[in-house]
Amino acid sequence: MAPGEVGRYPRSLSGPMPGIITLTSDFGSRDAYVAAMKGVILSLHPEARIVDVTHEVRPQKIEQAVFIAAGAWPYFPDGCVHVAVVDPRVGTERRAIALVGPAAIFVGPDNGVLSAALPAAVREGAVAGGGSVALPEGFAAYVIENVSFLRHPVSRTFHGRDIFAPVSAHLARGVSPEELGARVGEIVALPPFRAERLANGSLRARIIHLDRFGNLITDLSPDQVASSRIEARVRGQNVDGLYGSYAEGRGLMALVGSSGFVEIARREGSAAEELSADIGEEVLVTVIRGRR
Amino acid sequence: MAPGEVGRYPRSLSGPMPGIITLTSDFGSRDAYVAAMKGVILSLHPEARIVDVTHEVRPQKIEQAVFIAAGAWPYFPDGCVHVAVVDPRVGTERRAIALVGPAAIFVGPDNGVLSAALPAAVREGAVAGGGSVALPEGFAAYVIENVSFLRHPVSRTFHGRDIFAPVSAHLARGVSPEELGARVGEIVALPPFRAERLANGSLRARIIHLDRFGNLITDLSPDQVASSRIEARVRGQNVDGLYGSYAEGRGLMALVGSSGFVEIARREGSAAEELSADIGEEVLVTVIRGRR
Amino acid sequence: MAPGEVGRYPRSLSGPMPGIITLTSDFGSRDAYVAAMKGVILSLHPEARIVDVTHEVRPQKIEQAVFIAAGAWPYFPDGCVHVAVVDPRVGTERRAIALVGPAAIFVGPDNGVLSAALPAAVREGAVAGGGSVALPEGFAAYVIENVSFLRHPVSRTFHGRDIFAPVSAHLARGVSPEELGARVGEIVALPPFRAERLANGSLRARIIHLDRFGNLITDLSPDQVASSRIEARVRGQNVDGLYGSYAEGRGLMALVGSSGFVEIARREGSAAEELSADIGEEVLVTVIRGRR
Repeated sequence: MAPGEVGRYPRSLSGPMPGIITLTSDFGSRDAYVAAMKGVILSLHPEARIVDVTHEVRPQKIEQAVFIAAGAWPYFPDGCVHVAVVDPRVGTERRAIALVGPAAIFVGPDNGVLSAALPAAVREGAVAGGGSVALPEGFAAYVIENVSFLRHPVSRTFHGRDIFAPVSAHLARGVSPEELGARVGEIVALPPFRAERLANGSLRARIIHLDRFGNLITDLSPDQVASSRIEARVRGQNVDGLYGSYAEGRGLMALVGSSGFVEIARREGSAAEELSADIGEEVLVTVIRGRR
Repeated sequence: MAPGEVGRYPRSLSGPMPGIITLTSDFGSRDAYVAAMKGVILSLHPEARIVDVTHEVRPQKIEQAVFIAAGAWPYFPDGCVHVAVVDPRVGTERRAIALVGPAAIFVGPDNGVLSAALPAAVREGAVAGGGSVALPEGFAAYVIENVSFLRHPVSRTFHGRDIFAPVSAHLARGVSPEELGARVGEIVALPPFRAERLANGSLRARIIHLDRFGNLITDLSPDQVASSRIEARVRGQNVDGLYGSYAEGRGLMALVGSSGFVEIARREGSAAEELSADIGEEVLVTVIRGRR
Repeated sequence: MAPGEVGRYPRSLSGPMPGIITLTSDFGSRDAYVAAMKGVILSLHPEARIVDVTHEVRPQKIEQAVFIAAGAWPYFPDGCVHVAVVDPRVGTERRAIALVGPAAIFVGPDNGVLSAALPAAVREGAVAGGGSVALPEGFAAYVIENVSFLRHPVSRTFHGRDIFAPVSAHLARGVSPEELGARVGEIVALPPFRAERLANGSLRARIIHLDRFGNLITDLSPDQVASSRIEARVRGQNVDGLYGSYAEGRGLMALVGSSGFVEIARREGSAAEELSADIGEEVLVTVIRGRR
């Protein structure tokens, strides 16, 4: 699957739902938040099978949630309900939505956190930081308004438990999304991850995720570099690539990771620690003709 | 649900058990402890569905486990078996019990960790730090004595695996709690979470939990403040409230969180970090007449 | 179960597979890696029940994964598929294997990470750091070569998703391991955990795991000490034992933990913090005649 295509679901949503609900959030694992959501889901749909994508998104970092969801959702079978809750504006007028795609249903606040469900071409229309995009053919979105599908009283601070969990359970049981509320033609999305091309031909990438191994994953897609040889500059240090596997490089290296994006890694070590680099920082990339 | 009422199960425990077992512990996620419990459960009850509440209770902090369980157990369907293991006295003479409530069964050491299963009114009878309370109508407790329901040999350091896991599996399969051992009329409970009212009319609250967002959750129940306007003093700093949602306040704020208790939060940030505050610290609360 | 025997499965692998797949890795919980594996498994085997052992193995520490797996796998029912992925050489020529034991199937890279599946006597044949051992009766190993059981394209950095997840799903559905590839008579294993006996009769143990409570678990097996009274020296400090439970000791103590190995613990505290000790460090143990 090409990067930027992670949200494309070429399969059709038909047949019985498998009853699988995935959860992505910034709720962490030390509180009751996630378990409360699971309890609500199982109360409404005792046969549901719930799979955690992660609850370790940095608090309120929507973009990171999109990146992680993009690495998980496409690998699930058709007919799943994918819930994503990173919701800095919970309790305000931001909408709650269910987005029906060709092969799965996505539930969450309408703040861009469901972007990984959309094709990259659609996300191109979004402004930096997130903005409205028109839904393409094969997609439909519904505002969650019908209070009969919610848990009452609806708290103003925890819509994961009171809105998104019960709605996901009802959808996984086969409730039609049209029953939730008005259909809308636009939702909020983030632009696709893509490094910026500079006037001098080099690229300004950005670190969008730091994984457990200390790999620094950038928004540079391999199709943006015309060659397999690049030099990346991070925190004043040069890193060369592209290597084919973690075991091929020596010390710091650049390679295309399993997410489909270029990452800075360190053989049997942590690139993040060695470079003291974190999410959001710049990586300048120069393409070098010829093979590494 | 009012705070302090989180353990009330008004529904009746009847019909087939759904085979759901929840686990709450201080075992963490980096060891084999939780997986060993799940293996034992699945060996005895292959159809069991196991849901983690959390395993990140601070080591041996029974009170924190009670707070977290209170935020999760009430949202599960009737007929679940809820296991809680925070057990500083494992291997000593403290009893292992199964507590049967009107809508669920609770399994754990008899050290107060099952308190969230009991009505607040019953917990009022417990001394600070935990003490015996008489069980009310609708509840029955059994000491786990019948060795035929245990895993052998029973280790002296890991009753989660050898006692609580197999007993929960047997109960979820429909074994009658009466087969476990002698029925007892009293168990150990912690008093309900409740701020102390001072002579001058203000309240001395205590931080009982610090969630992943850095929200400082106190034992102050909103029914203890006659007004929606309060001023809280934490670590020498004043915090006002009550706000309706995280997005309404500016900087530090007090609001009623999803747990039903007053918490100190920081808009798009961590109150715990800003105040360098932690579990156990005092919060002095002054009620101000009129609305905020 | 005696330590060193944790991998012995005396039961026979017969009857229908229960469809349980366990996962052990160093992938952590903040990335999409584990969820991608689960999505691939559920796509191929929608009825699979997936249980996490842990994903918090220290990055690329095969030995720690073996220790944790040894504390979990033996408690699962017969017929499970146990996957372990700690894989510093992913993308190189190291083999991927399925190891069929008398009661379960094990899937992972052929780098020793599956050692907990083997009897201690077989692991005795391995050199320190890991080496080939001949499989005993009742075991068979197959190299994963048949590309029709893999996810395509196979990435060079994430065999968990593209090789081990799909193969585990196929095996749990009943695909015969013989269909995967060539049968081999030797696999890589680590030697069993065992303290070294010194010329003066004392023992040089090593800390092989540090659990969430700060207990320092060593490779000293109680059958290596002829008496119940020992004195351990860690980081210049003396620790006595063996105690029967955490509640019996005062301050620092040595006792036989639930893993079956001797550990250094601190009553209601963290031995690791008090001693500033970590995995890999030495513990010198003197056996004292008579009982403690």
